[in-house]
Amino acid sequence: MRALDLHSLADVAHAVADAARAPALRYFRKPVTVDSKGAAFDPVTIADRETEAAMRAVLAERRPEDGILGEEEAAVDSRSGLTWVLDPIDGTRGYISGTPTWGVLVALRDASGPLIGIVDQPFTGERFTGSPDGATWTRGGETRRLTTRDVTRLDDATLFTTFPEVGTADEGAAFRRVAARCRLTRYGLDCYAYALLAAGQVDLVIEAGLQAYDIAAPAALITAAGGVVTNWRGGPAHDGGTVLAAATPELHADALALLNG
Amino acid sequence: MRALDLHSLADVAHAVADAARAPALRYFRKPVTVDSKGAAFDPVTIADRETEAAMRAVLAERRPEDGILGEEEAAVDSRSGLTWVLDPIDGTRGYISGTPTWGVLVALRDASGPLIGIVDQPFTGERFTGSPDGATWTRGGETRRLTTRDVTRLDDATLFTTFPEVGTADEGAAFRRVAARCRLTRYGLDCYAYALLAAGQVDLVIEAGLQAYDIAAPAALITAAGGVVTNWRGGPAHDGGTVLAAATPELHADALALLNG
Repeated sequence: MRALDLHSLADVAHAVADAARAPALRYFRKPVTVDSKGAAFDPVTIADRETEAAMRAVLAERRPEDGILGEEEAAVDSRSGLTWVLDPIDGTRGYISGTPTWGVLVALRDASGPLIGIVDQPFTGERFTGSPDGATWTRGGETRRLTTRDVTRLDDATLFTTFPEVGTADEGAAFRRVAARCRLTRYGLDCYAYALLAAGQVDLVIEAGLQAYDIAAPAALITAAGGVVTNWRGGPAHDGGTVLAAATPELHADALALLNG
Repeated sequence: MRALDLHSLADVAHAVADAARAPALRYFRKPVTVDSKGAAFDPVTIADRETEAAMRAVLAERRPEDGILGEEEAAVDSRSGLTWVLDPIDGTRGYISGTPTWGVLVALRDASGPLIGIVDQPFTGERFTGSPDGATWTRGGETRRLTTRDVTRLDDATLFTTFPEVGTADEGAAFRRVAARCRLTRYGLDCYAYALLAAGQVDLVIEAGLQAYDIAAPAALITAAGGVVTNWRGGPAHDGGTVLAAATPELHADALALLNG
């Protein structure tokens, strides 16, 4: 019964991500109106709002009992125990800069945490999907199964982050303790970094200052691919804040110790 | 006469970039052998070598009198006054991490500097081309003309860089003087950042520690799109070292003053 539900719910998740592609691409690399919420540089574009509206329209029709937590509009309470977590354009700073590494995030969660997660990149046409059935990458007609890489030592690991753009001074210092031990540290990819971790291309992602809608889909994806995702205290990451995502439990344990050391 | 030459030479440049696509993609997101030149993390992959070989094969057939300066193989002296500058996979760290922001770089230069430059991204299928005829973006059957954005004040500018991965401590401090004045600073895109500057998406790129083959093609592209590219002393950038690329002369002048301030 549960397995059947999840297949049908995964179909809905894909329909939500499909609905996002056209509005998300409509304003990509075109002049947009950028306004700011609060003091930090946190752009909200027309594309963000139109994309979330398109995603919510699918859910209103197909899953009217489910809750919705999205970046742009007010939350919808769940009457089913299930909630959709939507970030229409994760990586807005990348989006307005024209990079192909922002993404549309769709997650479904119950009280225990995320069950299904999609990271979709409309410009490259890639979709990274995680569910209890496992993780996949699709592009055009091609599908590949995803698993995280078998890297267990920090000095063999590639680390991605959006530090130094995010986080407090203390968080930055903790991040740098891990970075100093890794083989390679790279910057600035937003949600695409989580997708590359699930795909076995990179081994660690360390972030801070996230919202719940930033991490629910990546967490489901990486878990489905065999990785480990927590906050910097080792607890659940899916409500946002700090995030440590790792390809293996060994890497996760070593990075966690350094973040708290 | 000169104009005719350049059209025919641009055809050769496109043929060289075309030849690079298959070998560059063959090892992308697949396990590769990474070895290291010297102490810094400077991976050289099989893909790098096979791609440069494919590019040189086109030039050996079509332009045997021209020189070649490439990342992987020994330089070929020019008997024509023209030299091709090749970087088969610029952004090798991005390539081995699976990001879609590395590129194949093809430039043609004479004694005065780069004349033609191509930044090609085989995975997204995008090609950014600059020549005395102007700058274009192509993808599939679509072509758009590129011009840099009309941003003249640092506090309106988006800055891209691969700092803190590159440069000396002094160079890092100089970079941060400019970054502190910009609206948005983003990291880690390698040559794709130059392409986005030519496309009017970002306004400044500041780098250090470059080789001649890293900057010849981006410099020709950005110049063709209306931007300004020099080293941090205001001199020619096409021999490598530090690079300051700007959308407008005003931005260039303000950033140059801060880099030297």
